[in-house]
Amino acid sequence: MTTDASAPDPAGRWAGVRAAVVGTGLIGGSVLLRLRAAGLDVAGWDPDPATRRHARRQGVEAPETLDEAVAGRRVVLLCGPLPTLADTLLRVARAAPPDCVLTDVGSTKAELAAFATRHGLVDRFVPGHPMAGADSAGLTSATAALLDSAAWVLCPSDGPATAAFRWLAALVVDVFRARVVPMSPQEHDEAAALASHVPHLLAGALAGAARHAALRDAVLALAAGSFRDGTRVAGTPAARTASMLLGNRDRVLDGLAGVTAFLDRLAGALRAGDAASLTALYAEAEATRSALLARPFDTSVRVFPAGGDHAAEVAWLRRLGAGGGHLSACRVAAGTVSYTAHAPAGTAPA
Amino acid sequence: MTTDASAPDPAGRWAGVRAAVVGTGLIGGSVLLRLRAAGLDVAGWDPDPATRRHARRQGVEAPETLDEAVAGRRVVLLCGPLPTLADTLLRVARAAPPDCVLTDVGSTKAELAAFATRHGLVDRFVPGHPMAGADSAGLTSATAALLDSAAWVLCPSDGPATAAFRWLAALVVDVFRARVVPMSPQEHDEAAALASHVPHLLAGALAGAARHAALRDAVLALAAGSFRDGTRVAGTPAARTASMLLGNRDRVLDGLAGVTAFLDRLAGALRAGDAASLTALYAEAEATRSALLARPFDTSVRVFPAGGDHAAEVAWLRRLGAGGGHLSACRVAAGTVSYTAHAPAGTAPA
Repeated sequence: MTTDASAPDPAGRWAGVRAAVVGTGLIGGSVLLRLRAAGLDVAGWDPDPATRRHARRQGVEAPETLDEAVAGRRVVLLCGPLPTLADTLLRVARAAPPDCVLTDVGSTKAELAAFATRHGLVDRFVPGHPMAGADSAGLTSATAALLDSAAWVLCPSDGPATAAFRWLAALVVDVFRARVVPMSPQEHDEAAALASHVPHLLAGALAGAARHAALRDAVLALAAGSFRDGTRVAGTPAARTASMLLGNRDRVLDGLAGVTAFLDRLAGALRAGDAASLTALYAEAEATRSALLARPFDTSVRVFPAGGDHAAEVAWLRRLGAGGGHLSACRVAAGTVSYTAHAPAGTAPA
Repeated sequence: MTTDASAPDPAGRWAGVRAAVVGTGLIGGSVLLRLRAAGLDVAGWDPDPATRRHARRQGVEAPETLDEAVAGRRVVLLCGPLPTLADTLLRVARAAPPDCVLTDVGSTKAELAAFATRHGLVDRFVPGHPMAGADSAGLTSATAALLDSAAWVLCPSDGPATAAFRWLAALVVDVFRARVVPMSPQEHDEAAALASHVPHLLAGALAGAARHAALRDAVLALAAGSFRDGTRVAGTPAARTASMLLGNRDRVLDGLAGVTAFLDRLAGALRAGDAASLTALYAEAEATRSALLARPFDTSVRVFPAGGDHAAEVAWLRRLGAGGGHLSACRVAAGTVSYTAHAPAGTAPA
């Protein structure tokens, strides 16, 4: 666990705000350290007593019980393993103040969002997912900078929930310099399937196949950039990967079907010895890669009334995110909310 | 093109040796720069006049014709595109001295090795493949350090060819600090299919599928480490990737079958919601990844008579490479050749 002393939130807007992080592994520990560096008053809690002791040795407030950790907090971030989040959300909602904003960092959103709705928590709970990580795990690998400048999905909802979304969006922009991607839980899960989950399937298949290859040791000896890159996330702890995939099962299988369809086209051109088709398919792939590395964005400011039912605001936010856009600022003042939005060039949503 | 001034070959064994590099793009240019940094007398030739002019501006001897570039040389390295290598090999063999060692850096070996045998060049031509690269291209991206410490496959053969292999192995160990992996062309192509070529297929399929996804722009917005790593080599120039795959077609399709078989097992466990099986499969993948990052090796020195038919020596060399081992030294003195060999722990070949 290392502390980055650079100064987020130079205006000090968030100094002294009381926050709690529940689950202080790699992601939660990194969230906690960055919040603390920004001057928030942060408590951490983890079900593992050794992790709590380690946190205390680092000067982190780490009470023995979850209830103590979240009592009196303005915001609680749920950062534990995906399968634990629903239960933890109920426990935290009971123990935290009624105006406390709740969010999570789980890798899938639809299931937990539906759970929150069923339990009457939709006004307080903003499903979230910062797109970052590492193949290591645990508080000892956490760093304050891990999530800096990440794309950070937050799921807005109509009604009172919109205020919680705005508040949280401002927090993660100011403290983490995040690109906030506003999306519906369903669209998040569909996009994340291809952006994150299916790549884990491919990495697992490549690493697993190498293990069963006749020339396994020679394959490892010759492994250069493409194999190393292509198997990196196969080094993620196996149970964590399994939970992530199972939490988004149907969409991952849909995304995989798209990948195997393109793979079949590549293999078909290769089998046929058709250099022109193979090159044309790779030119498509190359274009995606170029777009990933350098996409031009149009920047605009969009203003909505701070009051009302927020339906138009939420619809616009979701269109922005589904179209590949993000927010870099959210300010509420004088009866309005203004967003600074960045949409892929020529695609800004109406 | 940048020159690394660090000093390979401190003993000066290779100083003044006359070498030529044919095809001075990314790989060839990097080979040339490293040979020059080690004190060899190197000429470069490229079919592109602008590349020749660029090389001359960097102080590289770059004659107008291939024949001039290779005349009087002790070693010629063929570094042009894979589909050009057979023709270039014939031209170079005619223009270079009879005792000149010829090698190449192409990504597949069996086809070119068979071509060399058919044309009576087996005694002079040592098929080679340094396992390194980048998704950029051209002499302007070349650096003297690109191939440093790479695994470098060289294919030994019986008879007079063995002397050429030994000489070249010593050169690339001394000058590039290479791990020389001695393999038969067929075993190289089988291992390289999984270590390098199939990962290009997976990267192309992932990038291509993202291009056709309904939420394409959102996928790119959310793309974090796993998608970026998993598509990196899809940024390789499309025609180069197509040539590489077509040059090793049958083995690539075999390797792909192994990957899709493991992928089917992963997808089956996911579809069934079988967390235990999914975790167990990922534990296998994780083990491969761990082995890739840290494999223990046993080091030994093996001595053979310098003369004779070299059959036992070549058989041992090929077993070493097929088993994941490599050479870090090759010295001929007092009627013997001695190799310093590194084999995966507990697997040293007899």
